[in-house]
Amino acid sequence: MAFEESEVTARLADYVVGTRPGDLPQRVRDEALRSFFNIVGCTIGGARHEIVDLADKTLAPFAGPQQATLFARGRKADILHASLINAFASSIYSFDDTHAQAVVHPAGPVAAAVLALAELRPVSGVDLLTAFALGVELECRLCKGVSVPPAKGSMAWSGTGISGGFGAVAAVGKLLKLDTEHMRWAMGIALSQASGFRAMHGSMQASMMPAQGAPIGLRAGILAERGFTASSVGLEGKYGFLSVFCETPDLDALAGGLGSRFELLNNTYKAYPCGIVIQPIIDACLQLRREKHIVANEIARVDIQASPGTMALCNNRNPKDELQAHVSLHHWVAVAFIRGTARIQDMDTETAVREPALMAFQDKVEAVLNPAIPSDGTEVTLTMNDGTRHVCKIEHCIGSATNPMTNADLERKFSDMSETVIGAARTRELVAKTWEVEALVDAGELARAAG
Amino acid sequence: MAFEESEVTARLADYVVGTRPGDLPQRVRDEALRSFFNIVGCTIGGARHEIVDLADKTLAPFAGPQQATLFARGRKADILHASLINAFASSIYSFDDTHAQAVVHPAGPVAAAVLALAELRPVSGVDLLTAFALGVELECRLCKGVSVPPAKGSMAWSGTGISGGFGAVAAVGKLLKLDTEHMRWAMGIALSQASGFRAMHGSMQASMMPAQGAPIGLRAGILAERGFTASSVGLEGKYGFLSVFCETPDLDALAGGLGSRFELLNNTYKAYPCGIVIQPIIDACLQLRREKHIVANEIARVDIQASPGTMALCNNRNPKDELQAHVSLHHWVAVAFIRGTARIQDMDTETAVREPALMAFQDKVEAVLNPAIPSDGTEVTLTMNDGTRHVCKIEHCIGSATNPMTNADLERKFSDMSETVIGAARTRELVAKTWEVEALVDAGELARAAG
Repeated sequence: MAFEESEVTARLADYVVGTRPGDLPQRVRDEALRSFFNIVGCTIGGARHEIVDLADKTLAPFAGPQQATLFARGRKADILHASLINAFASSIYSFDDTHAQAVVHPAGPVAAAVLALAELRPVSGVDLLTAFALGVELECRLCKGVSVPPAKGSMAWSGTGISGGFGAVAAVGKLLKLDTEHMRWAMGIALSQASGFRAMHGSMQASMMPAQGAPIGLRAGILAERGFTASSVGLEGKYGFLSVFCETPDLDALAGGLGSRFELLNNTYKAYPCGIVIQPIIDACLQLRREKHIVANEIARVDIQASPGTMALCNNRNPKDELQAHVSLHHWVAVAFIRGTARIQDMDTETAVREPALMAFQDKVEAVLNPAIPSDGTEVTLTMNDGTRHVCKIEHCIGSATNPMTNADLERKFSDMSETVIGAARTRELVAKTWEVEALVDAGELARAAG
Repeated sequence: MAFEESEVTARLADYVVGTRPGDLPQRVRDEALRSFFNIVGCTIGGARHEIVDLADKTLAPFAGPQQATLFARGRKADILHASLINAFASSIYSFDDTHAQAVVHPAGPVAAAVLALAELRPVSGVDLLTAFALGVELECRLCKGVSVPPAKGSMAWSGTGISGGFGAVAAVGKLLKLDTEHMRWAMGIALSQASGFRAMHGSMQASMMPAQGAPIGLRAGILAERGFTASSVGLEGKYGFLSVFCETPDLDALAGGLGSRFELLNNTYKAYPCGIVIQPIIDACLQLRREKHIVANEIARVDIQASPGTMALCNNRNPKDELQAHVSLHHWVAVAFIRGTARIQDMDTETAVREPALMAFQDKVEAVLNPAIPSDGTEVTLTMNDGTRHVCKIEHCIGSATNPMTNADLERKFSDMSETVIGAARTRELVAKTWEVEALVDAGELARAAG
């Protein structure tokens, strides 16, 4: 490695401070835009979820002046509250982005932080996207550096919980034009608030842990800008972040190849709003239905060969509510064959989940473990009432690193989510403005258009 | 042990929910009042510190409506901001309370949270002090349970950072009259935000880590009250708090003997605003000066036998600023002999620290290690210009668990801190009202009197 452990925080701060928009290769800018586009759609999509309503209404009495837009909620609040609620909305359906190796959903806290700040301190769309790209890059590097082998981290930590504030503060610090000294303080302030563990999964707090990264990053950047100090070696210092979150960090993944190797390029986008290991099964079912003109009530049984990850996390029949439906492959197989879809509205109310036809169909679905199947693959065999059999094998599902969502896929995903919330006309306008964010003189215009 | 690990969160929640004011033994109520009194004084004392100014002024533009008093700052803000700034002020001089075994300063986040809430949702003084006592009790238990042997925790974590929100949420949940189910969610929400590591010590962020516990506890309690869910086994659940903060927790310290054994009784209060291991040396110097009528410029040398902890942390000559003065025994020996005091105003500006007479005197001071000396003891030998020698041995300093501050000592400490901030008349009124907090029908009156 070309650097010492003692240089880690300085290297990352220097990199963020010194990078100009033109320093990012075009394919990195393109992927940053795709990540940004996807998360804006997810934020709109989740904006009126009843759990988002609950969080916003409960915390609104403590919020400050109308500085930043709450997406699709018809009002503004101070940037800390607005960024918290927007980031919370972006992950409420678990439909956001995921790094292909580290279990981190990087875009939510970074996007919510920079969009809120852009309304308070105007910046160009180019600067906004550059800051967003750098924040996502550092967040993925941090999570990978403490959790992906050869790093030895605890599975118990929430990946986005412990790295989201770091991603957000890098982006915020970039927009605030902090110098290296202040950027290191800002990073230290945010790192010292890194928190979250997976025991919260399955509860409302699961989406709040990553969401906190947005206000943590904003607060840290703004405090450091005014001279509020923190350790300047927050990562590698004695009793620092690395010492508590990882006994053996992967320093090269964290701080090697800056400016030439981009973890942002390994960001992926789900095609369906459910556990990542269910995605290939839905692919197979929708493909069978379409290509073989399958009618659900002619199906006798569905046999699924599933990866170890799928069996461990999602072999759950007859979920009782939305949070359980997130992780039930049986639910999504039934939805795919009966409705030909796999959308938010197929799980977002108890009624949608417990519809009798869906429940009954699930009795026909059997998953068995096949250790040779990768987590983004599956093999589904249909047996029809007349004995006919159909097989569909998926090597790498749509949305995996090998078979990524196209821009057209992302646009369909955005529109599906957004139209039910803000209607078709406003969705078209917002889709166009989001793809064109780099053309904006004032990036705050995008946030206001999402209001 | 009389309970299973799987019952830990439930036991603590049940205990807080079920405890009535009369269930706390009188000596526990007395010590709770002493802890409360001490931290109110510390909060006033720190309220106008320049670092508190910086934090308040930087974050005020994002604060909400005037719900709760910022102590000694002449205004109000929303309860989250007010509690953050008050908790921050309470520890800015490192003059707050310390558990005799666990390195936690429990009162700050709990007091700031309950005092802010009391202005929004009126409660009696008795209920306020009961909630405060339960919060401090649980915070000390949590920190002890993950950090004091036989528990094996990492020295790197900030004790108050990782347990302060838990203490605050227990107290807030008690005031909100949560039932056990909601209390467990509230605890889960707060636990999942536990954070902070010691690399930040020596920077401004050091006092922000424990301060965050106050708004974390308030937000968690209020969210849970409205039905926002979290894991109900936040401590012991798979991938829960204990799994990440301690490989081998001491479950008995954490949740054994509830209602009969009180960690609150092991809370201690410093007599001087500096590192805990300097306290016995100041005791000795002030005693020599007083009893032997010592005049500083007649001293030829000061020889100190110091404990291992003192030598490791505070053997630092000629500090350059306030944060360095916190941990310089030489500074405080000079102050004690020259001024006959050891107060905040003896270190709170660079001028106070770098006064030439203080700097010159420090050349006469030599500390040597004596492994037989306990951390709350010392032996100081004075050699005068005429060759006379005087010796003072301190077995257990004032403010240690063995030689606690009396109520009169605490009152003097409070007044010393408070008079320079809000004057003698208002200090007298606030001292009286704080001692009598249990007589208040509306505890918010105390917070308003501290404004």
